[in-house]
Amino acid sequence: MDGLWHCQDMPAPTSPAGPARATGSADRAVPNPARQGSIRNANLALLYGLILDAPAPLSRAALAATTGVTRATASALADTLLEAGLVAEVSPPPATGAGRPAAGLVPAAEGPAGLGLEINVDYLAACVVDLTGAVRATVISAGDQRDRSVSEVLADLAGLARQAVSEAGLTVAGAAVAVPGLVEAPHGRIRSAPNLVWQDVEIGAALRSALPETPFEPVVGNEADFAALAEAHGVFDGDADGPAAPLTDFLYVSGEIGVGAGVILDRELFRGARGWAGEIGHVTVQPEGVQCRCGARGCLETVAGLEALRRDGPEAAASALGRAAAAAVNLLDLPAVVLGGAYARPEFAALVPGVEKALADHVISARWAPVAVHVSRRGTAAAVTGAATAVIRRVHADPAAWMAAR
Amino acid sequence: MDGLWHCQDMPAPTSPAGPARATGSADRAVPNPARQGSIRNANLALLYGLILDAPAPLSRAALAATTGVTRATASALADTLLEAGLVAEVSPPPATGAGRPAAGLVPAAEGPAGLGLEINVDYLAACVVDLTGAVRATVISAGDQRDRSVSEVLADLAGLARQAVSEAGLTVAGAAVAVPGLVEAPHGRIRSAPNLVWQDVEIGAALRSALPETPFEPVVGNEADFAALAEAHGVFDGDADGPAAPLTDFLYVSGEIGVGAGVILDRELFRGARGWAGEIGHVTVQPEGVQCRCGARGCLETVAGLEALRRDGPEAAASALGRAAAAAVNLLDLPAVVLGGAYARPEFAALVPGVEKALADHVISARWAPVAVHVSRRGTAAAVTGAATAVIRRVHADPAAWMAAR
Repeated sequence: MDGLWHCQDMPAPTSPAGPARATGSADRAVPNPARQGSIRNANLALLYGLILDAPAPLSRAALAATTGVTRATASALADTLLEAGLVAEVSPPPATGAGRPAAGLVPAAEGPAGLGLEINVDYLAACVVDLTGAVRATVISAGDQRDRSVSEVLADLAGLARQAVSEAGLTVAGAAVAVPGLVEAPHGRIRSAPNLVWQDVEIGAALRSALPETPFEPVVGNEADFAALAEAHGVFDGDADGPAAPLTDFLYVSGEIGVGAGVILDRELFRGARGWAGEIGHVTVQPEGVQCRCGARGCLETVAGLEALRRDGPEAAASALGRAAAAAVNLLDLPAVVLGGAYARPEFAALVPGVEKALADHVISARWAPVAVHVSRRGTAAAVTGAATAVIRRVHADPAAWMAAR
Repeated sequence: MDGLWHCQDMPAPTSPAGPARATGSADRAVPNPARQGSIRNANLALLYGLILDAPAPLSRAALAATTGVTRATASALADTLLEAGLVAEVSPPPATGAGRPAAGLVPAAEGPAGLGLEINVDYLAACVVDLTGAVRATVISAGDQRDRSVSEVLADLAGLARQAVSEAGLTVAGAAVAVPGLVEAPHGRIRSAPNLVWQDVEIGAALRSALPETPFEPVVGNEADFAALAEAHGVFDGDADGPAAPLTDFLYVSGEIGVGAGVILDRELFRGARGWAGEIGHVTVQPEGVQCRCGARGCLETVAGLEALRRDGPEAAASALGRAAAAAVNLLDLPAVVLGGAYARPEFAALVPGVEKALADHVISARWAPVAVHVSRRGTAAAVTGAATAVIRRVHADPAAWMAAR
């Protein structure tokens, strides 16, 4: 570990299999201390999760009743979250019957915030999202980033970060940086970002020295992954006309020069063992097709990337895109596909019926449950708001880790 | 819900996102009581997970130290697991220094067992696995099951189940039934099992009346999914020459008349939103290829199913199989592919280098981390032992749910 903490590596407080299960390669692995939560930390996370998910402020009495502990125990855990600034106490609604209504707990809008940053081909961006999921500031600076040195780019990015944080007026728990490339966990090494003309670049140390120190180390991730996460959490940029109900399980496919994807399961980004999940651009869709820049023939990018889309129009791309999406849907049983990036532009609207047809023809379960196709309504800021959201999700999932790090 | 509880629907005590997070479609969903664990149940699961994963028996003092609670609290939780028969106390090793060594806790070999059942084209099987993961009995009965009525098949299956349970001499927590088809969660409806000539069959009620009553309702799942789970947990049938270290994250591809798959993430089966995950047989590998029985053209099954494999030999199938596997590996960042079912037969050994080459050519990250290809060493009993393992995993993940149901 070089100390750079990569987003793909974000520890969940428990594994999907259950709490504190070790996952070594041997049948009875030596317990991994990093995955063994203390019972108090697990209970704090459980209580915080209830507060975050409640449709209305939860009283201490309701928390005790739900978790099955005494009022005193629930109150002590709630006080810990309050003192850490992770929840706030709101006044009860005016009394309508007998007795004094109880104060309720909600996520703290003025608590630690997530800082999202983005390095893209023709712009840089910064965004601050608070613990309630609200976007508190977004700054975008247009300009070609190709052929610039990493240190020049990071200096500009740090300037945008300062501006966004100052505008939001919040303290920051950590930063996540979205890049258009393949990023490796846990080191944050950018293995390949061909459109930035970056290859095998390690930005961890430079990032840490460019950004102000935060409790969580900065992390680096793929832009389509972060954009997918924003889609799952109803985080909209200022230009959208308001949040729709976020989807919980879907494949997000983003069309640019390359074709990127993010897999969202149960509202969380699936990152894969090494952070490389979501690579859909090199599915073979034409075994005898033209050569792709990856060396193989007939990859999805050669048929449904932005260049092919402009050259041949959306109809040729839709069938290939739909077949590639169908393979993912069949493998993961996903009820929806979201088209983002350039695919969401009005000029490519004809993609939708073509993708729908390919999904109907190739998804085995489509006869019982047709796959929904949505067009993303989030604009350019999707990835940067998703990056900020990733930081917030880390505080949400393990409040004790943030308390220990601050 | 018809009361049939489907394996794909097995509740994990916590979601991958963190504890007790509601997962409704709205941004702030109404908390789902079924997913809100009580703190005591979550703590029991955490403690049980530590005992299950420990390389050596854990003392009460070690449990208290690891979880950060008092010795009295850890002891009370451990006593609950002991009284329920989920753990056993073992004598300490002979003292080698000063002081009396402490007794340790281990999973109880004589505790509730998992009953695995399998309905396949040419055999029926039953298997009992105990809480330590050991296979305690396996019974296989050869015979063509096609064109038999569901009730005839289930009557024979129930007979095998009684035989296996009596041989193992254990009480059973629940049964899981493996079938070669697409099974829907949560109802256990077999949407399609073409090789059994079963279509849209609901076996839940018949299964419940055929099998003895168990604390957990019987569940139904896909054979490749269960076989993959067995691979992840080192459960071998008696014919194998001993366990290799189980893999934690991999794609399991099983070749039969159809081509099935199971996705294992962090040693758990990924089931998908409706239990339909793992459908890989209908990936388009030849857009202009022959028509598949699903109606589409050039599906993987038409090139790499058992019929094509016998007709054209493994070399033709390997490239298509490798490309389909590469698409899954790129999407999910999986470090390994396991070839099972007929693909594991010595006569098809030439598949391995062909699949390896296709993965090297088509997996984007292969240049940094080559994808390992393994051949399953588990025989016919893979799916049925995996089904029994699925029941055990449910007890492991949520001991309180089993205590409440027994």
